[in-house]
Amino acid sequence: MKVVKIGLLGCGTVGSGVLEILRQNADLIAGRSGARLEISKIFVKNSNKHREPFVQERVTYDIRDIVMNADIDIVVELTGGEHPAYEYIVSALQNQKHVVTANKDVMALHGADLENMARERGVQLLYEASVCGAVPVLKALSESMAANKISKISGIVNGTTNYILSKMTADGAGFYETLAEAQRLGYAEADPSSDIDGLDAARKIVILAAKAFGVWKTLDEVQITGIRHISAENIKDAKAEGRVYKLIAKADCADQIITLSVEPQRLSFENPLARVNDTYNAILVKGDACGNLTFTGRGAGALPTGSAVVGDIIEIAKAI
Amino acid sequence: MKVVKIGLLGCGTVGSGVLEILRQNADLIAGRSGARLEISKIFVKNSNKHREPFVQERVTYDIRDIVMNADIDIVVELTGGEHPAYEYIVSALQNQKHVVTANKDVMALHGADLENMARERGVQLLYEASVCGAVPVLKALSESMAANKISKISGIVNGTTNYILSKMTADGAGFYETLAEAQRLGYAEADPSSDIDGLDAARKIVILAAKAFGVWKTLDEVQITGIRHISAENIKDAKAEGRVYKLIAKADCADQIITLSVEPQRLSFENPLARVNDTYNAILVKGDACGNLTFTGRGAGALPTGSAVVGDIIEIAKAI
Repeated sequence: MKVVKIGLLGCGTVGSGVLEILRQNADLIAGRSGARLEISKIFVKNSNKHREPFVQERVTYDIRDIVMNADIDIVVELTGGEHPAYEYIVSALQNQKHVVTANKDVMALHGADLENMARERGVQLLYEASVCGAVPVLKALSESMAANKISKISGIVNGTTNYILSKMTADGAGFYETLAEAQRLGYAEADPSSDIDGLDAARKIVILAAKAFGVWKTLDEVQITGIRHISAENIKDAKAEGRVYKLIAKADCADQIITLSVEPQRLSFENPLARVNDTYNAILVKGDACGNLTFTGRGAGALPTGSAVVGDIIEIAKAI
Repeated sequence: MKVVKIGLLGCGTVGSGVLEILRQNADLIAGRSGARLEISKIFVKNSNKHREPFVQERVTYDIRDIVMNADIDIVVELTGGEHPAYEYIVSALQNQKHVVTANKDVMALHGADLENMARERGVQLLYEASVCGAVPVLKALSESMAANKISKISGIVNGTTNYILSKMTADGAGFYETLAEAQRLGYAEADPSSDIDGLDAARKIVILAAKAFGVWKTLDEVQITGIRHISAENIKDAKAEGRVYKLIAKADCADQIITLSVEPQRLSFENPLARVNDTYNAILVKGDACGNLTFTGRGAGALPTGSAVVGDIIEIAKAI
């Protein structure tokens, strides 16, 4: 059986999830991919942290040990943030490595460049995990729905804000106390602004639109409104009218004009997105042949995101 | 640009949908597949029927003009039913054609054989359209979720019965009058037994289980109960308890034992499948890494089913 060698960049939440899946389901994955997937090296920044033996034996603090390593077939970028993740990916592609990433910042900002670079070098760049974790919407858009002219994408793509709005709706609590609870539970970060002000969702809608319409729009083309201003009173009023607040990321394409937005909307209970609660994500896509398709699942977390990352790795391993 | 030549077997509802999509979205599909997809020949049985010029120019009444035609790359089987569709597919594979089919009868009964045959001949056999029309659940199971041990599939996979049960729930009408209405609207066939007695759903759960667990079970291994016996009274009682009847196809895998069933279940309103109404289909899949993923969409109709067929054609065209 062929061996496919992987270099992992980053070993935080998602990285640990990837390692767990690759070990737990090793035989099953080998059967499905036709390859033994081997983690050769793991790049981390912090040399002071205690790590399990499997990681310690493979650890490197020098990025070149991976991106310039002739033995490595696939570089899996899980460091997050724009820099230096972007430079890592560029360097991996230039060295003709296939790349799998979960990095929505890099893809939303540099997707066009990076895809061109991958095409020129004849390698694959896959990023299913960058949008909605385990939900396989990018593959659906680019492969399953490839026969369709897509006219609309509309979705709940940020778990933190969906948790907060669901909780406010269920408990009648105010925004800031619910945010504090979400932070206590680990559903919101210490600095929650990227989630609650809609920037995280904006990045995802840029990526979704690129897959659906074949054009990379820029972040400043997204009309963004967050959820800070939504009060317990607003939620109560909406409820009284049979409606529920959801932060909706939207992409429309009509007459070749693409419009992107992120904003809280008051959905009727009948809307399929109205019933997607807690940290769940859901995306509705409308195609001219397939009609409306909806995809629902876990948008974050070590294993759900890891599932998408390993799915991409398997796809590349099959083709090598 | 390379040209990929297609032979179409059957030109009924789905065949017409496929032709419409290929013409309507020709440029978009060429861009995405890197190939110009050309319908070379169309096999039909009835020579007395009036057909549009595009079809008439390509029509043949001899199956060998397609399955033995050295010029044809992909055979698209849309004749339906077990025989002679099975023989057509076998013959196409033996002549090293790639095959795309929407035929759930053939796949549920002969999937193992046909997949072996395709593997031996080094060609692809794709059948996304055979289960739930436009809903890309087979690709999700075999590719996006490939990192997962799947433990459960549970779904509404038959639009006819879902229409009947939704209508009975909404209107309080009885089974046979609702069936008659469904027949009038074209949602149920003149002989509705395969739908309402659960056999159609059983075929689909066999195919879903094969993709999820890698094992082709036989139809007689599916515990099947249909919906004929469900009365307006039953539906009313369920409603009073906050529940709704749905015909659920299920596949469980625990300790390597696979259990398949089709039966009407009384789902709580909270269950995501409870809100899937009319002719819509929905499938929930549980994987050890991804958690619960739900896919919802149109399970039948010329364009939705055609969308899945053309999606498979594009996948093969890319790889040729």
